Order: sequence, then structure tokens, then C-alpha cells
Amino acid sequence: MAALFRGSRNLLQRCNKQHVDLALVCSRSMASKTPVGFIGLGNMGSPMAKNLLRHGYPVIATDVFPESCKELQDEGAQILDSPAEVADKADRIITMLPSSPNVIEVYTGPNGILKKVKKGTLLIDSSTIDPSVSKEMALAAEKMGAVFMDAPVSGGVGAASLAKLTFMVGGVEEEYTAAQELLTCMGANVVYCGQVGTGQAAKICNNMLLAIGMIGTAETMNLGIRLGLDPKLLAQILNMSSGRCWSSDSYNPVPGVMEGVPSGNNYQGGFGTTLMAKDLGLAQHTATNTKTPVPLGSLAHQIYRVMCARGYANKDFSSVFQFLREQEDEPEKKGD
Amino acid sequence: MAALFRGSRNLLQRCNKQHVDLALVCSRSMASKTPVGFIGLGNMGSPMAKNLLRHGYPVIATDVFPESCKELQDEGAQILDSPAEVADKADRIITMLPSSPNVIEVYTGPNGILKKVKKGTLLIDSSTIDPSVSKEMALAAEKMGAVFMDAPVSGGVGAASLAKLTFMVGGVEEEYTAAQELLTCMGANVVYCGQVGTGQAAKICNNMLLAIGMIGTAETMNLGIRLGLDPKLLAQILNMSSGRCWSSDSYNPVPGVMEGVPSGNNYQGGFGTTLMAKDLGLAQHTATNTKTPVPLGSLAHQIYRVMCARGYANKDFSSVFQFLREQEDEPEKKGD
Amino acid sequence: MAALFRGSRNLLQRCNKQHVDLALVCSRSMASKTPVGFIGLGNMGSPMAKNLLRHGYPVIATDVFPESCKELQDEGAQILDSPAEVADKADRIITMLPSSPNVIEVYTGPNGILKKVKKGTLLIDSSTIDPSVSKEMALAAEKMGAVFMDAPVSGGVGAASLAKLTFMVGGVEEEYTAAQELLTCMGANVVYCGQVGTGQAAKICNNMLLAIGMIGTAETMNLGIRLGLDPKLLAQILNMSSGRCWSSDSYNPVPGVMEGVPSGNNYQGGFGTTLMAKDLGLAQHTATNTKTPVPLGSLAHQIYRVMCARGYANKDFSSVFQFLREQEDEPEKKGD
Amino acid sequence: MAALFRGSRNLLQRCNKQHVDLALVCSRSMASKTPVGFIGLGNMGSPMAKNLLRHGYPVIATDVFPESCKELQDEGAQILDSPAEVADKADRIITMLPSSPNVIEVYTGPNGILKKVKKGTLLIDSSTIDPSVSKEMALAAEKMGAVFMDAPVSGGVGAASLAKLTFMVGGVEEEYTAAQELLTCMGANVVYCGQVGTGQAAKICNNMLLAIGMIGTAETMNLGIRLGLDPKLLAQILNMSSGRCWSSDSYNPVPGVMEGVPSGNNYQGGFGTTLMAKDLGLAQHTATNTKTPVPLGSLAHQIYRVMCARGYANKDFSSVFQFLREQEDEPEKKGD
Repeated sequence: MAALFRGSRNLLQRCNKQHVDLALVCSRSMASKTPVGFIGLGNMGSPMAKNLLRHGYPVIATDVFPESCKELQDEGAQILDSPAEVADKADRIITMLPSSPNVIEVYTGPNGILKKVKKGTLLIDSSTIDPSVSKEMALAAEKMGAVFMDAPVSGGVGAASLAKLTFMVGGVEEEYTAAQELLTCMGANVVYCGQVGTGQAAKICNNMLLAIGMIGTAETMNLGIRLGLDPKLLAQILNMSSGRCWSSDSYNPVPGVMEGVPSGNNYQGGFGTTLMAKDLGLAQHTATNTKTPVPLGSLAHQIYRVMCARGYANKDFSSVFQFLREQEDEPEKKGD
Repeated sequence: MAALFRGSRNLLQRCNKQHVDLALVCSRSMASKTPVGFIGLGNMGSPMAKNLLRHGYPVIATDVFPESCKELQDEGAQILDSPAEVADKADRIITMLPSSPNVIEVYTGPNGILKKVKKGTLLIDSSTIDPSVSKEMALAAEKMGAVFMDAPVSGGVGAASLAKLTFMVGGVEEEYTAAQELLTCMGANVVYCGQVGTGQAAKICNNMLLAIGMIGTAETMNLGIRLGLDPKLLAQILNMSSGRCWSSDSYNPVPGVMEGVPSGNNYQGGFGTTLMAKDLGLAQHTATNTKTPVPLGSLAHQIYRVMCARGYANKDFSSVFQFLREQEDEPEKKGD
Repeated sequence: MAALFRGSRNLLQRCNKQHVDLALVCSRSMASKTPVGFIGLGNMGSPMAKNLLRHGYPVIATDVFPESCKELQDEGAQILDSPAEVADKADRIITMLPSSPNVIEVYTGPNGILKKVKKGTLLIDSSTIDPSVSKEMALAAEKMGAVFMDAPVSGGVGAASLAKLTFMVGGVEEEYTAAQELLTCMGANVVYCGQVGTGQAAKICNNMLLAIGMIGTAETMNLGIRLGLDPKLLAQILNMSSGRCWSSDSYNPVPGVMEGVPSGNNYQGGFGTTLMAKDLGLAQHTATNTKTPVPLGSLAHQIYRVMCARGYANKDFSSVFQFLREQEDEPEKKGD
Repeated sequence: MAALFRGSRNLLQRCNKQHVDLALVCSRSMASKTPVGFIGLGNMGSPMAKNLLRHGYPVIATDVFPESCKELQDEGAQILDSPAEVADKADRIITMLPSSPNVIEVYTGPNGILKKVKKGTLLIDSSTIDPSVSKEMALAAEKMGAVFMDAPVSGGVGAASLAKLTFMVGGVEEEYTAAQELLTCMGANVVYCGQVGTGQAAKICNNMLLAIGMIGTAETMNLGIRLGLDPKLLAQILNMSSGRCWSSDSYNPVPGVMEGVPSGNNYQGGFGTTLMAKDLGLAQHTATNTKTPVPLGSLAHQIYRVMCARGYANKDFSSVFQFLREQEDEPEKKGD
């Protein structure tokens, strides 16, 4: 799906229906190479900020870890000491943080963004957090006259470096174009999902279905192999049939079936089990809060939790295939 | 994947490596319009037999239900009284039966195929049964000098009528061409899977992964809707992301997301919950016998069992979406 | 386990090690018939407050529902308008509220307890909520010089009326005696569990294991019946063997096996499915927060969620037996 | 429940309603110290046969392993070469074999019991197998004029040595007394369950509920510990509350909570994970065959399957607690 792009005429038409400060919105969007704030320079945030720099945007950044700041500074970013200071200097800010408490602190803490944010500022949070926290932040931002959008990403550190991330964006639709302008520097797909929180919802839903598909594929491949099927042939059959899914045709967990995926590299790199468990915990949390039954999603979450406890925390999440297989050091396994 | 077809030169070369009666094999395959036996004229068997007739094969058939026999007779088939009598008249026989006990009876029972089967007969069983039963039948057939292959199908009654089934074939590779000749009259895809039993294995594996994908898709769509996402948009996002699977992009369980699928027709038709539960029971059985852990497959089986007990037995298996949703007559559902 | 009781000498010894205001503690405990505040007069709170009245304690109460207040007023309680007002008049307060947000509001809201609470006040929260919220409230109370303990209950509305509840208490051990004095008016068992939050932890753990035991018993009884066992005999066998649990020997879910339990009364009364789902959601939440794998507890939660959606919301939680059984209106259920 | 014992007058009264050969039944029961056949001298069969010898019964035995035979021979048993030979010499035979195929072979194989069994012989199978196989054997025995009962045991090798097993007996009620006479030499509890197959059903049901209770207890104890509860205190609370079950009060899986159980001995001895997985596979099989939904039982089965694959095959089944806990060699486990 190509990136969606709407031109400035469209924006002006939309501006006319706005409730926010029109002048600030238009001035922000047209003066596009004004500095962009970036808070959170970790594995994902750092390559994302670099891509903004590459597109000619001055970047004003901060992070709790000095080494991460230094790296960005070498690339040309200006480093400040706190989120509040960044908010004082930039009217568009992107945040990329590990979890809800970090987001709450960076936005509403004593030295947080909202302490000094200017009216009309566009705040884009690309962290993956509970959608209800995104909604809280949006309300808090609105009180300060700023606009908050959730725009979590899919694609991992590789896609972050190559500017091939997928962004799932939630927030007031009139701000979407302005967000897109920045996000298209860092991603290949930018999708508008609806009101604030729906970006998180889309991300969480995708990852729950991904986890179910991956574990299902691992179980199925393992069963087929035990029943005498050649793994490559089985994968071909699944991929031409109704069992087909991304995990079977693009990220097969069985070593030797596909090249260029973690199963062919001892499950190194990729998307770690710990991170998948975290996302599944978020999915479970939102499901409980909305009283939605998610039996397979719930069990997928538990399986990844057990894997974290059994030595698989840092392996790619496709290592579930290995987890379900018998360990070689169990000769007595056939003893029943 | 297009139907595989290997020519007669290939067959002759393969014939030279045979252990079965060469003369019978070659004479069987080359005299291709000799009568074909067909045992089991139910929802699937009947349209399959009709497609053989349409391709110019005389069909000699039998079934325990006289009405099914009458229907095929009207189409030009010759009806006999038992599997043994069919075996006496045809040297290629296809069986399409509901379950393992039926297969055991039709092949090895008092009036079964093997009572009168002729040496060199090709037996193709398209029932979906336990692969170990297929292997038993193959051994029993071998003792009588006949050849047995398992060739279960995928695609349902619609695909059966339109001759668009997928056949997953297991058995001695040298017989595959002869089987193909017949199967390509009834299906669009014919795949060789390996030794006897691997056709069943492939079918069972595909359906287990399909069930996991369908329930996962239903849970995910339901969760997304509850979190404020538009269902069509969510499906689009999943289908362009790593959550993509056949259930989300070709058979979406949410009414209104896709046309031409059971969710748009009150879950009528399609592939029934009872049939899916049966296949999942087979998968569980083979998993237990090979000591293979299948946690999601196991839970998918249980979910479909509960659905069978709660009024969903005859609905399409995508009705799991409806099953997980709240019933309208529960105003107090939000009362926690 | 009999109620634990420690004498005043013990209390004085403990007082000497205190960090709280000794004078207030001692004066509170010794002048035991001073008014007790009670906030939350629902199905549980109302009979609990009545039991305090019966033991000669003046009760000063409030609730958001006027009818609940009226009922207590008729029993002799003094009704005030807000938690803050209650805190102004009583130095021992019990709260019994539905969930975390209610607790947060009642304690820290604009008209909350902590707005007017007096130094040294003993606050006992008998709601079942997230232990981390209990800890938050304890910290907030400590800042105001008050002491907070969590003391969730087990036993249901019947036990509440009969003053036979079990209280699981968490908080500073020195306050336990003072809490006991009040709790023994309302319960038969009072257990000290540890620091603040451990009372909630014990309650949540018990209910998770209870749910697992109840669903397990329902599955087992159903399976046994289908395999030809008489239900009463099966229950006897389980109860003398290693399958024994409270659900099989004290609350059997199969009609006719035991008297005096909801299964004998069409699953009316008892402990509702919705409430069990709520407690299991809390268990799942704490498990996720501590990265604890709880596969069966997680699935039990999902089963109760589905039951809430399928018409079982207000039935006793032992109705899971009925949920797993086949509905009578499914003649084709044996048709696979 | 004390062992049931019915006197000879009762037996004579029952004899009058018999369909079997009265003379043989009465003569068999009254000449009680006639030789008893015993087939299967493994971990369980060997101590069971020894207890028969201790009660003064001559034992005629066989087993496929010569060493097992030798051991019994030293204790005074007469060893023969095959089940058929044993059947030729004894009119009461007990079998104790690992699984269904073994039972089918020993009873109906070329040198099986039924090749030489005498009319009126009482056959007691104490193996734990599929109840439908027990029914098959009963039918086959009936054709030869013999009587077959299933009497699987509970209690393990310790109880076998101490003659404290529990026998769950299925078969024609008139034969029960004769069976009891022998079984009370080897067990402390003998229970009549109903027709043939119900003994197996009771055993399978008990072990499914036991597995659910054990995993549930392990999850619950682990969660409570992580939430700050002392394990011994938590166990006490569960055991006085509705969470109570045999696994929490008689076989607690947490080291240090109870003495004299495998958790206190590094999970050595006891009832192995592999054996529990086998029993759960049987339960799943019977559930599938009767279309009974068993979601928790199904998941318990999968959890024990994964444990077998992950190094826990020979540990006591309470080692699930250890399996769910974090391994010490994972410092990054808190890194999410």
C-alpha cells in the first residue's frame, strides 16, 4: 500500500474546519524545515532521528543516556538537557520511548514537554503503549493548546535504518498531513487509523495476530516434520493453501526453509521474544479493559512469557519453533 | 502452483524402477478411459464423481445411501451393491468417506474392496483420516498386490463442483502420475507430498494452521473494533503488515469487510464448524501420537468443540467471530 | 483456622517500636466503641456495616446511592455526604468499593478521604483491586499521617450477612491488631499476609486457583459422565483421590451431586461469572506486571470472558459446567 | 473411604442372578488360594505381584524382560513363557502393562491369554489404557467365556509397595467381589465404578483434574511469591479457602512449603512428567472421541508435552513449578 499523501490545497480546505489555532498549523506545516524535536534516541529513535537529519530537518534532541546523545550530536543534531527544553525550541516533536511510564514522565513530568510546550505544537508519539495512556496525553496536551497524535511503528531496527517503517497514526484528522510530512522521512507506509489511540490499537492488533500466526506456524511445521513431511514442501503447500500467513511465507521459523530470516541465523537479531511479550501484554491489557475475549492471543502471550523465562528472551520471536522442539540431550524422550 | 504433469516417457522411465507389476501399471495408465470405481457419493464424492464422468470416464459406483446412488445413476454411472463388487470391475478406485472407521470397513470389511481387488489396482483414498490408518490400508492393499495412496482434498463442496479442489497425495512416487491423471479431472492443484500418510499429514497441518489463523483473526478484528478501529481499515492494515493471513485477506470473518464470503451471508454454507472440529481432532490425535506439543492447535480444537455445543455446529467456521462477540440480549454485559 | 487474637500487652510492646503517632494508635484502639466510618454500602458493604452496628459500633457512612444510605440509616447509621466528611468524623474507616478507579476517587478525589483525614486514622480498604493501587493509596495516606491497610474479603454476600467472611490483610504489622478488632465483627477468619498489597495478592491468587479448579472440575465431571460414570460416584472418587479440590467437594457444579449449592438452584445466587472475570482480569494484570507466566489462569480468564458474552454473566461461576455441555436444541451434535 | 467388603452370603445371593457359569464363579471365589496369574512385572507389577505372594497366593507369572521374571521367581513365583501358558494354568489373571498396544498383544496376540484361557476365568487389567480398548478386550474375552474387568490404579510405586493403591474397577457387578478379594491384597481402596471401561474413565478423569490442579497451584504459588507473599503463608491461606486442592495441601510443588514431597527433593521420584503426559493424552483422546470440550485439560496436556521436550521428562510432575520459574542464568530477564 503506497504512502498516502494529500496536498496543501486539501490542507487549507481542512484548515477551514479547524478548532485549533489555524495560523500556527499553517505556519508550522509550510515552514517545513524548521527544527524538529526528537526525544528518545534508542535502537529505534536513533536511526529515525538520523533519517530526519538526512531529509534536511534540523533536529533538536534529548535522551537520558549521554552516549546516545553524543552519537546524534556527531550527526548534526543539537542536544538539549530535557524534554521541556526541547519543547521550548521546537514546534514539532517526535517521541520514541520504551513504555507507558516513560511516556507519562517525558510528557507530564517535572521537566516534561508540557511544562514548556508552545501553543499549536504537534506532538507525535511513536512509542508502543496502552492506547488509554495516549488518550490521557492527548487530553493533557490539548489543555496546553498542543496537539498529540499516536504513531507507533512496525518494522524493527532494520526498517528504521532504511526508512522503511510502517506508521499507524491516530489523532485529529486535520493534523494528519503535517504528521505525514515528517513520518514519510522515516517510513515507507503511513496509515491514518482514526482518533487518538487507534494507531496504538492497530499496532497492538497486528502484533497479536502476528504472534498467533508465528506460534501456529511453528507448531504446524513441527507436526508436519514429525509426520514425515519435508519442511520446504510443507511450507510450499501451506503457502498455496488456506494455511498461508506472513510467518509461513515471509519469516518461516524452520531453519533451512527460507533464507534471510532469523531461523537461518540461529534466531539472532530480528524482533526479540521480550519485545513480543511486552506487546502481547499490552494487547491483553486492552482486551481486559474492553472485556474482549482473546483466548489464542492470551495463550500466545503466556507462551512468550514462558520462553522469556527459559532462555529465549533475546532470541528472535520465531525461536518458538526451537522452544517447542525436543532438546537433543533428552535420549529418554521416547520413553513413554 | 499449477497442476504438475509428467508425460508418458517419464512414466516409462519410472516404470523401469518399479517393484509392482509393470504390465498392469502401464496397461492401466495407458488405457485411460477404462472404468473408474467411486465409493462414497456424499456432498463431496458426488460432485467429484460427476467430474470424472464429464471427462469421459465410465464410473462404477456404490454408496450406502440409495438416493446418492440414484443421482449418480441419472448422470450415467453404473451402480453396484458393494465395494467388493466395484473392485471386481474397476482397476482404479477412488474412495471419499467421512472417517477412519468407514475407510476401514470399505477397504477391509466383509464386503470390502480388498475382498475382490485385482492385482495392480490403484486405490486412491480422498477421505480425511488419521495417517496411521492410511498406512494400515496401504499395507493391507500391498498384501493383495494393489497400490494405495492417500489423497485428501482441500476446497470444500464449491471447489468440488467446480473441479477446483487441491489434492495432497501420499504414496509410492511411481504411482503418482497415474493418480494425477484422475485427480486433475477433479481438482486444480495436485501435490505430491511423500510416502503414504503424508497427504493426510499435509491436509491436517494446513487445517490446523487455518483454524488458528481464523480464530486469531476473529479475536483481533473484535479487539480492534472495541478499541475504535473501523473493521475494513483494520483488515487493510493487517493485510499489508505482518499480521496478514488467508483468513484476514481471503475469508474475513467480520460481516461487511469482504464480499462473497460466509460472514456476509450469516455464516451459511462454507466449511462447517463440525467439520473443522473433526479435522482438529485428527490433528490433536496425530500430535499426541508423535508427542508433538501443539498448544494453540489444541486450544483451537477446544474452541470449535465448545462452539459445536453452543449452536454453531452447522455454521461456517468463520462464525467464531460471532461466537466471541456479545449477544445483544445482554444489556448488563458492561456491568462489571 | 481460628481468628488470631493478640492481647493488649503485645500491642503495647509493639507500640514501642512504632513510627506512627503512638498516642493516637493507643487511644484509637482502647476507645473501641468510637464511631467507625464506612464508605461503600453495596451488596457487600451494607451487610458488613450492619454487622459493625450489631457489635455496638456507631457507624458514620456514605455512598453514592441514596437508597443504600437510607437502608443503613434505618439501621442506625449516621449518613454524611462525602468521604471527606466521614474522614472528618471518624478515626477508623472501612471502604468497600467495586474497583480501582472508585478507590482512587474515594481516597484521593476532590471530596476524598485524604482531603480531611486526621493524623493517625486507620484506613481499611476491603475492595478487591490491583495491589499496586493499594500501595499507591498507602503512600498517599502516609503523607497525611494516616495508615492504610488492604483487607479484601472472600466468602460472598451470604458470608457477609452471617459475619463469616475471610479477610486477607496487608499493611504494617503493628496496625494489624487494631484492624482485627473491627474485622472480627464481620468475619470468621482474619489473616495477616504481609506488607501493603499482600492482602490483595492473597485474594487474587486464591480466586485464580479457585477458577482453575472450578473449570477443571466442570470439564472432568462432564467427561466422566460422557464416559459412562455416575456423577455422584465420580465426585466421590475424585474427593477421595488426588483430584480433590474445593470445587469438587464443596461446590460441585453438577446438578444433583450436592445440595445447598448453586448447581442445584439453576446457578442462581452465589458468586457471579462477571465478578469472577473481574478478579481474573486483576490476576492477569498483576501477572503481566511481574512477568509471571500463568497459562491456565489466563485461559480460565478467557473462558469466563466468553461466558459473560454468551448469557452467563449473572449466573454463578459454577455454571461453566452448563456452558461446556451441549444445548438440548442441537440434535445434530452427534453428526460428525 | 474404606475398602468395600461384601461377604459370601451376599455373593451367593448375587450368584443367583448371574448369567455366567455359576459353578465356576463360586468355585473360583471359594478356593481363594488357588494360583493367580500375573502378567507384566514392571515398576508397578512387580511390587503388586509380591503383595499377592505375601498374602499366600501362589503366583504364576510372565514378562518380556527376564530380569523382572527372575526377581519374582526369587520371591516364590512360578515363571512361564507366555501369557497363553499362564492362562492355561490360572483361572484368575491380573495384567499390568504400559499401554493399549501391549494390552491388545497380551490378550489377543498369537501367544495371548485368549488363546488358551479357560471358561469362567476372571481377567483383571490394571493397566491405564483407552476405555474403548478395555471394552474391546471384554468383548473378546466374553466370546471365550471369560470375564474381563478394568481396574486401573492410582498411587504410584510407593503405594504399590506398601499395598496402598487405589483401584477403580469397571465390569459386571457380579464379578466385583471376586476381583476385590485379590485387589485388597494390593490396595487400600477398591471402588466399583460401573460397566467395563468406567474404571479407566475414573482414573483418566482423576488424573486430568490432578494435572489441572497441580499446574494451577504452581502458577498461583509463583504469582503470589512474585507479589510479595511468603510461600508457606500463601499455601496456608489457599488451604483454608476455596482455592484448596490436593496439590496445594498434600503435594505442594514449592520447595520448602511441605516435607516429604518431591519438591523438597529436587523433584526426584514421584510421578513422572512423561507418565502424566501419557495419561493426559488418553484423556484428550477420550474427550475427542466423545466430543467433550476440555480446554484446561487440553492445555495441561500441552504444558506437560512441552516440559517433556525441555528436560523435565523424568522429573516429578510437580516440577512444573520449576518450569514456570525463571532460570538463574538469565540476568536480562527484567530487561523489558
